[in-house]
Amino acid sequence: MNEWHHDHLERSRQRYTEELLQFLSIPSVSSLSEHAGDVRRAAHWVVERLGAAGIENAEILEPGGHPCVYGEWLGAGEGKPTVLIYGHFDTQPADPVELWSSPPFEPTIRDGRVYARGSSDNKGNMLVPILAIEALLASQGSLPVNLKLFFEGEEEIGSPFLSAFMEAHKERLACDLVISADGMQSREETPTLVVGWKGLCSMQIDVRGPGVDLHSGIYGGAVQNPIHALAEILSSMRSAEGTILVEGFFDQVAPLTAAERAQFAEFPYDEGEYKRAVRVEGALFGEPGYSTHERAWARPTLEVNGIWGGFQGEGVKTVIPSEAHCKITCRLVPDQDPQQILAVMKAHIEANTPPGVSGSVSLSPATASAYVMPIDHPGNRAAHAVMEEIYGHAPHYIRQGGTLPVCGLFRDLLGVYTVIFAFALEDENAHAPDEFFRLSSFERGQLAYCRILETLGESESL
Amino acid sequence: MNEWHHDHLERSRQRYTEELLQFLSIPSVSSLSEHAGDVRRAAHWVVERLGAAGIENAEILEPGGHPCVYGEWLGAGEGKPTVLIYGHFDTQPADPVELWSSPPFEPTIRDGRVYARGSSDNKGNMLVPILAIEALLASQGSLPVNLKLFFEGEEEIGSPFLSAFMEAHKERLACDLVISADGMQSREETPTLVVGWKGLCSMQIDVRGPGVDLHSGIYGGAVQNPIHALAEILSSMRSAEGTILVEGFFDQVAPLTAAERAQFAEFPYDEGEYKRAVRVEGALFGEPGYSTHERAWARPTLEVNGIWGGFQGEGVKTVIPSEAHCKITCRLVPDQDPQQILAVMKAHIEANTPPGVSGSVSLSPATASAYVMPIDHPGNRAAHAVMEEIYGHAPHYIRQGGTLPVCGLFRDLLGVYTVIFAFALEDENAHAPDEFFRLSSFERGQLAYCRILETLGESESL
Repeated sequence: MNEWHHDHLERSRQRYTEELLQFLSIPSVSSLSEHAGDVRRAAHWVVERLGAAGIENAEILEPGGHPCVYGEWLGAGEGKPTVLIYGHFDTQPADPVELWSSPPFEPTIRDGRVYARGSSDNKGNMLVPILAIEALLASQGSLPVNLKLFFEGEEEIGSPFLSAFMEAHKERLACDLVISADGMQSREETPTLVVGWKGLCSMQIDVRGPGVDLHSGIYGGAVQNPIHALAEILSSMRSAEGTILVEGFFDQVAPLTAAERAQFAEFPYDEGEYKRAVRVEGALFGEPGYSTHERAWARPTLEVNGIWGGFQGEGVKTVIPSEAHCKITCRLVPDQDPQQILAVMKAHIEANTPPGVSGSVSLSPATASAYVMPIDHPGNRAAHAVMEEIYGHAPHYIRQGGTLPVCGLFRDLLGVYTVIFAFALEDENAHAPDEFFRLSSFERGQLAYCRILETLGESESL
Repeated sequence: MNEWHHDHLERSRQRYTEELLQFLSIPSVSSLSEHAGDVRRAAHWVVERLGAAGIENAEILEPGGHPCVYGEWLGAGEGKPTVLIYGHFDTQPADPVELWSSPPFEPTIRDGRVYARGSSDNKGNMLVPILAIEALLASQGSLPVNLKLFFEGEEEIGSPFLSAFMEAHKERLACDLVISADGMQSREETPTLVVGWKGLCSMQIDVRGPGVDLHSGIYGGAVQNPIHALAEILSSMRSAEGTILVEGFFDQVAPLTAAERAQFAEFPYDEGEYKRAVRVEGALFGEPGYSTHERAWARPTLEVNGIWGGFQGEGVKTVIPSEAHCKITCRLVPDQDPQQILAVMKAHIEANTPPGVSGSVSLSPATASAYVMPIDHPGNRAAHAVMEEIYGHAPHYIRQGGTLPVCGLFRDLLGVYTVIFAFALEDENAHAPDEFFRLSSFERGQLAYCRILETLGESESL
């Protein structure tokens, strides 16, 4: 084991933190068109940072929507494996901004944590391997493996152009293993290796009633109320106990095996701690017959992400609104086909739209299938060894309810698996106000990335 | 019959229209605190206009919230009845502003209609009697009855201070009959006399789940979703057919009598025309077993006026929101007590809040009981005669689903009934975008007010 990179990381600590703050100050929100220029600015920042680290051929590529960034270092030779590192530099929107303790794009350090939108998901995490590579190249002049880096700018909107782009650039992206810097650890001192992600599909429901907002006194009781109609559509999708009632929703679900459930149960679970993490004072809630981790990791879900219609201001406005709207995402598990879910959701909404209004469903083109990786894959074994070394004990194998669409794309288009090797933590308010990233994770990650590249360089086969 | 006032009205037509536009350009939105100054500005405008018309002692009074305006002309002598004319100069909010064809507080005349928030409800209508009084005083030097004018600035927020104010000013407001310039006609050529209004109570439901917005991938399926919980609460309030299911909601409802239903059925009803008026393409909808007019006029209703929670922006944001909210108003019929309805609604919401979230209900202090006036009251007979004269045929007696809280207050505190004598029309988008008022109604109303004051001046008893 070579410790020179360790000295380099120590010496660079303050500069790396400053660079992280600089990167986070770019509001690269991919879902809002007014931030398209900022997403591009972040891409340029990454290209420059790759070049400074010693990565070759760093450049911006154009999948079609927001740009992505590619770079490589292929000097290890043919006897060494080729590893592709993945991450994304776009972020979720920051609203509701008023719930943030400090402005979301003015990164602020408090108690060893960097608060900013994108700090944990994924800019902080994706900067980590770049810094590790710089440390290895600076201290040793070479890398233990051939390396490709691929960072995208549309992960938070479901990577709509990525599939076609990867199809068109198979040669360039070809590798033996992907390591994803997008992902997270459950707890600070309990290492985990994520071996499964849920799939995703999303839609918006628009309910239209009267052609104009009506006085709810004069016309109340005479016409259907679009908000009440939408409430009934949503209510029809779930039993009171939390079981999804959409016909056909579970048709393609691979039942959890006894082995999977036993593996999930091995992961420490403290309900009080979980409730404190999500700040739920009452009971947790979800599909009967499954544990919290089973529901969150490996059962399909249907969540309403937003709803709006009619008067939302101060005081009273006695109106029957012309329209009501909501957004829904479903998270999918093996072997669900996102297109099949969109079809059954659409059919359910149409069949359950009350009389007197029309309901239409806009299906988002961005979908992803669920992804599961074999626990004993050589990539996981290398990650396992590094984690054991760094944390002092072996990692748990878990799944996550989030979606990393690239994992399925790498599997289907390049024929390779993706090791999730990331040091964000589950409590860091990803997608929520006051997102933060621990500087301790930032530093631990840099060391871990040096070590996993060295370990993979020593691997017999990948 | 004296026609001098008619000449005066003809000569003043253009000036009166200009004054109407000036009045409507004041954004006197009573529910939004940022418009409090505008409500007061409108009150000052009314005081000045009363003085110019020859009304004495015109002044601003302070019920506690927004101001109201009082003026009088008591020169008819003790042998003549004292009539109080009521209206309001506050308006509903204008949003959604983007749905207006012209700015809501920049009154615009198109095709003989004045488009502006408040044009129909109620500023256009309440200016009408002031102009009629001016014409009578200018042409004859006196009025046929003793007159009091009382205009309020909080009607659209349920007149929260009015009850205490009227209680404290019983002497000043004492009269034999109230004529309300707030109200409307159903159709341009079909005169109607409104002899009943619904009561009102309103509330906001706030559903709170996790203490912070959560990533709907990571935590989806593990916690209750506040939006879905709110949808279930709303859904529980109504059957699929539209019957309100809140326990106790109908306990105090006086059943419709056969005579009332027969009277309602006399009013011409064309379902196609009704649907075109509300721009509903599918079916009308409401409580089974009652006609459209019965539901709208004389059955209690429960309408959701607004709902919001989570992400409402462009694209996708995969979040479980911490909170979801909605606003509800119930319209009440004889003999429902608004406090009883608020109590059963609160109990229902508490009993039907799903596990994993907390639901709280904020009850609006502004409530009103339903109001019904005897058809053969001398005030109605006078209005009937004037309408027959002006329209060429007798008016229909109808009810309205709207609420005019003052009617109940005048009845309960001053012991007098209120004749609804107003010339707005039902299709004028009151409370909705593109509210308008017909100039033909504006002129017809001025003539009608001259005639009803003359007719009441000749009445034997009131």
